[in-house]
Amino acid sequence: MPKKTKRTTKTTQPSAKAKRTSRAKKNGAAGPKLEQLARSVVEMALRDEDPTVAIPTRALSNVRYNEKTRYVEMGGGKQSRSFFNFGQAKRFMQTLLVASKCKELAEMGKTASIRQIYYMCKHTIKGTNEKTFDDQSESDPIIEDLEVAVNALREELHVFASNRGNLVGPITLVDDGNTLDCAAMGSAGYPVPSIVEADVIQFKKCSAKFILHVEKDTVWRRFHEDRFWETHQCILSHGGGQPARGMRRLLRRMHEELNLPLFVLLDNDPWGYYIYSVIKHGSINLAYESRRMAVPDAKFIGVSAFDYDRCGLSDDVKLDLDASDIKRSKQILAYPWFKKKRAWAREIKKMISNGFKMEVEALISKDLSYLTEEYVPMKLKDKKQWLD
Amino acid sequence: MPKKTKRTTKTTQPSAKAKRTSRAKKNGAAGPKLEQLARSVVEMALRDEDPTVAIPTRALSNVRYNEKTRYVEMGGGKQSRSFFNFGQAKRFMQTLLVASKCKELAEMGKTASIRQIYYMCKHTIKGTNEKTFDDQSESDPIIEDLEVAVNALREELHVFASNRGNLVGPITLVDDGNTLDCAAMGSAGYPVPSIVEADVIQFKKCSAKFILHVEKDTVWRRFHEDRFWETHQCILSHGGGQPARGMRRLLRRMHEELNLPLFVLLDNDPWGYYIYSVIKHGSINLAYESRRMAVPDAKFIGVSAFDYDRCGLSDDVKLDLDASDIKRSKQILAYPWFKKKRAWAREIKKMISNGFKMEVEALISKDLSYLTEEYVPMKLKDKKQWLD
Repeated sequence: MPKKTKRTTKTTQPSAKAKRTSRAKKNGAAGPKLEQLARSVVEMALRDEDPTVAIPTRALSNVRYNEKTRYVEMGGGKQSRSFFNFGQAKRFMQTLLVASKCKELAEMGKTASIRQIYYMCKHTIKGTNEKTFDDQSESDPIIEDLEVAVNALREELHVFASNRGNLVGPITLVDDGNTLDCAAMGSAGYPVPSIVEADVIQFKKCSAKFILHVEKDTVWRRFHEDRFWETHQCILSHGGGQPARGMRRLLRRMHEELNLPLFVLLDNDPWGYYIYSVIKHGSINLAYESRRMAVPDAKFIGVSAFDYDRCGLSDDVKLDLDASDIKRSKQILAYPWFKKKRAWAREIKKMISNGFKMEVEALISKDLSYLTEEYVPMKLKDKKQWLD
Repeated sequence: MPKKTKRTTKTTQPSAKAKRTSRAKKNGAAGPKLEQLARSVVEMALRDEDPTVAIPTRALSNVRYNEKTRYVEMGGGKQSRSFFNFGQAKRFMQTLLVASKCKELAEMGKTASIRQIYYMCKHTIKGTNEKTFDDQSESDPIIEDLEVAVNALREELHVFASNRGNLVGPITLVDDGNTLDCAAMGSAGYPVPSIVEADVIQFKKCSAKFILHVEKDTVWRRFHEDRFWETHQCILSHGGGQPARGMRRLLRRMHEELNLPLFVLLDNDPWGYYIYSVIKHGSINLAYESRRMAVPDAKFIGVSAFDYDRCGLSDDVKLDLDASDIKRSKQILAYPWFKKKRAWAREIKKMISNGFKMEVEALISKDLSYLTEEYVPMKLKDKKQWLD
């Protein structure tokens, strides 16, 4: 069991005035940054220069691991996008178009999904047959470009993704003005929205001692039904697979603002290792978000490749490891943020030598409540079994 | 706007005693039926007969449309599964194995996911290399077989699926003992669990006049953000695509027990038509569930193929219709429950002659709030635009 730590709990429900202020802040969040982008383009044009925007490069080549912060971070590489460049003109136009729609959203105080942004921006350019966007696959990366270009979070641009993931536990929070006791929200718990910034969600009260994050909703339900969060006084969350931005950001906020240790329980396969990597250090594609989404102190408590022997599991838990699993595991092992960790090298090599993977759910082949009553309590108690 | 109707609202939060009774009922739900199955097998064996279970056939060939109830129903076809039949022995064993695990779940008062059932049932048969199940694709259909064989709902068998879908609106319900005001559950609303039977969820208070069910969560969020449910005093739900059993069952319960009309807003494509067909009449695969999940009075309010002209939409909403879309549309049109409806024949033929499909979200290319402030209010007002 993790050491009990004193927690600061951010308190009080926002007053009507605070709500208005928060709403104003919400509306204006990225507005000035977007305006600044537009102004600089206009000024270049007025100076008879080629209007250009500089976009930081989002690619593996421009990602580095910061050993001090333990974040996967973006490097300084930039690409420029110019109006009078034949190969860049369309993307230049698209960038400014998406920016202008985000500005509109901010002014209206409304949000839109990435698909809605696509439809808002799509039109046929007057006097031509040329469309601004042919497909959503063109507008999605532009939104990410814009995030890094103006250094605004997607949420500040008023763009949301599908929400995914739920939690349950002794925490009371205010979401969109509604006070919610997450220990009393029914059988599916509290659904974590896509936008969880402080102007939408405030923490009011929390008596949890730690967070247990599991990979899948069906595993989460097993823990919820066994009232694990009550017995162990913790927040129990799942991300429905790889956690979406909303869930990652909320895990980070609870870890940081409520001082809650984070434990992660995932399948013993390359996908599980990768999910852990993303939760802990950040992802390559969203490296510019690591500083607000990663939880470098997160601990991996299982399922470990060593658990097969350690826990006396039967062959029924084994799933075949194929060539692509092995290749992917080796890639993960080669990440700069895994490379120096001896315990992780041992773990991944053990899985490869096992020749099989294991799902969290497989452990119930021992007994339906083995996971909640024996396995996880044992893991939480024995720090030596944690992987960092 | 639909006519305001008087509603019966099931009331009062369950007392501790009621909760215990409910728990007992929950535990016992399918127990006796499973016992009966086992007993009949034992009796056959004691009579020196070949132990056999009869499983109603779940296939298109055994499905019929009941014009009176307007349900897609199962016919009387049955397959027998015998112990001393070389081709049936394994499935016979699997059926009884899954049944015994469901019985255990009922006795413990616990539930398991279909994947968890697979792991609970999987083992190597003593003295052989033969596994009871090689893959979850073998155990999933056995669960469905069992549902029809013992005439118990999956929920009564204590088996759950992933939960999917949310709702918001002026309804207060009790879920697993927690009283929840669904008008005040934050930005993601109330997450509909997989099991929504009356022993888990009770309706307490409801002032909604109707239900608007939309296809996707991003569309739902647009309506939620514009407070559509407040302005129109309705329950606003989405199923995250084709609604899962939990959502379908809850729609049916709200429609039936609270007397709420159900309106459905889906994409104008074969998939949207099919989702409507399933919500209204039931699905082919789960035909045995239609009588408790279908809502034959549901109305389709859009998006219709005629809306392109009717609403003066631009070409930006058009998505190419491909050969498989056309083929699928014709299949749907040939369903006995669509065949006799002239308006649906016109609708589907119009989409094919349009040569394009349209997503609900595409309508915001007109204006971000066009959907919530103009389109849907117009559709609700004009009954002639409803498709039955």
